[in-house]
Amino acid sequence: MLKLESILSPVEGEIALVTERLREVADADFPQFTQIIEQAIGHSGKGVRPALTLLSGQVNQYHRECLIPMSAAVELLHLASLVHDDAIDKSPLRRGLPTLYSVWGDSAATIAGDYLFARSAELAAEPGNLRVVRLFARTLMLLAKGELEEDLTVYEWNQSRQDYFRRIDGKTAALFTMATESGAILSESTESTVESLREYGRNLGLAFQVVDDLLDFTGEEVTMGKPVGNDLLQGVLTLPAILYVEQHPDGGLIKRGFDTRGDGAELGQAIAEIRESAFIEKSLAIARELADKAQQAIRSLPDTEAKRALTELTLYVLERNR
Amino acid sequence: MLKLESILSPVEGEIALVTERLREVADADFPQFTQIIEQAIGHSGKGVRPALTLLSGQVNQYHRECLIPMSAAVELLHLASLVHDDAIDKSPLRRGLPTLYSVWGDSAATIAGDYLFARSAELAAEPGNLRVVRLFARTLMLLAKGELEEDLTVYEWNQSRQDYFRRIDGKTAALFTMATESGAILSESTESTVESLREYGRNLGLAFQVVDDLLDFTGEEVTMGKPVGNDLLQGVLTLPAILYVEQHPDGGLIKRGFDTRGDGAELGQAIAEIRESAFIEKSLAIARELADKAQQAIRSLPDTEAKRALTELTLYVLERNR
Repeated sequence: MLKLESILSPVEGEIALVTERLREVADADFPQFTQIIEQAIGHSGKGVRPALTLLSGQVNQYHRECLIPMSAAVELLHLASLVHDDAIDKSPLRRGLPTLYSVWGDSAATIAGDYLFARSAELAAEPGNLRVVRLFARTLMLLAKGELEEDLTVYEWNQSRQDYFRRIDGKTAALFTMATESGAILSESTESTVESLREYGRNLGLAFQVVDDLLDFTGEEVTMGKPVGNDLLQGVLTLPAILYVEQHPDGGLIKRGFDTRGDGAELGQAIAEIRESAFIEKSLAIARELADKAQQAIRSLPDTEAKRALTELTLYVLERNR
Repeated sequence: MLKLESILSPVEGEIALVTERLREVADADFPQFTQIIEQAIGHSGKGVRPALTLLSGQVNQYHRECLIPMSAAVELLHLASLVHDDAIDKSPLRRGLPTLYSVWGDSAATIAGDYLFARSAELAAEPGNLRVVRLFARTLMLLAKGELEEDLTVYEWNQSRQDYFRRIDGKTAALFTMATESGAILSESTESTVESLREYGRNLGLAFQVVDDLLDFTGEEVTMGKPVGNDLLQGVLTLPAILYVEQHPDGGLIKRGFDTRGDGAELGQAIAEIRESAFIEKSLAIARELADKAQQAIRSLPDTEAKRALTELTLYVLERNR
């Protein structure tokens, strides 16, 4: 079992500096707000995204003074989108902890998210690279579109794999792509290296989200901090459920469950069925293909500590269990 | 009575192009979303802010290809903040029309606002000027802080003029400042001209907001599309109410009304009293001082059509009645 900590050891010191920058953001003018922001930062997870920027930035010229703020921008943008997503989805919990939305309410979540978006934009502008700033603005837009698409397709049972991948491309892969691409740009890489790291980031992000969606079915309520099959219960169709629909062209239990907005027992039955089905293994195989693609994308980069870490991350995303 | 249309005649053609850019934004991939965004653009008001960018950009080198997207960015940022503000404040109406929040709900308003923020960031990055991009990020942050401060001080009767001006500095003046400052920067003005136009924008914005807050007391429900004294009824203390509190150190009717969150008749009585009081005239005098400051700030600029228009705007903001 790969440990994230040891994979990220080449950028350990920098991650501490990124965390410091995040703490500065929490240190706003209003004590109540500090608490709100600190709570969001506390939810920030395991920091794969900022590490991607730092590692991609080590592939060529390593400009630490640019990469630290950019890496913090990546993590803050992620946090901001989580804060709004939780408010939009009215989620009580994230990683087993109460969400900012559930503690402070709608309005505070909207404002705190906006503030975090703004601070991440400031951080992304700090390195003074226009291409990165444009990438940031574009990513912001893709995130909003991804969230929108999820919102508009809720309780729609008749979705294709293509619909799913377009959705997670915006929702997750866009941010991973920004993380690696910005690192590559800020380290003055050649266009071909930028392209390799962008391709790597995108496929890693897709694999990451497929695994995330899998875990929603296979995980335990205790470790996930939310009900098993929560996505489906909320009307969100992810890959295992789409594979189910492919096998049931009339939509089966999922259509019937969605038709009543999950009022009956059908969705629970569908979840139990999917957990026991080959759709899980098949989804994992698809994630593996994506992770392989990510690995292939960077195979021609020079052999460095950073490349080793990026390669290991393609294995780690498949193995993680929460 | 000054007409806005005739004041803005030097940039009439450009305003049409800005509107076109806004329409492009509304033309998103999802028909439902197009409708949502078009509704927001429909609320966009009279377009003083984008005109400020265009006029400030005419003071020196006029780079139309930079000013059109920047001007659209200014307006979209304004729209985005209105969409979120309405959701945060749970406002049913704006300018007498149903808000996006009231029609589509919380979640759609949050997402649509995020999308508009993102698109405005893209437009602000289009001219390729880093200083402008940083100004944009900073403005985004000031807007979020201003909204936050309003939210945190709601139903607090014991506020000073200083509190009020700090609040509207973030809420309104920051955006006016960005509008004029970005125009000045993009027209390659000298630092002293940039500073003059920034000072102009800030004071014009403050005057604009003071008048807005005045009209909340003096306007008619029919033309405003919301109840008279709506701010106070919502627990928001604006200048006329602060002048009342200065005269009633125990908070008088306002404290009593706020204590019960507006449940009793006190706030209605306070509104009636303020409408008949000298606080209205005194607030207008303060707005006049601010508008004068704005006018003074640009007095040394060369005499151009643009300067004439900017000068007339300092009179217009005092005269407008909705």
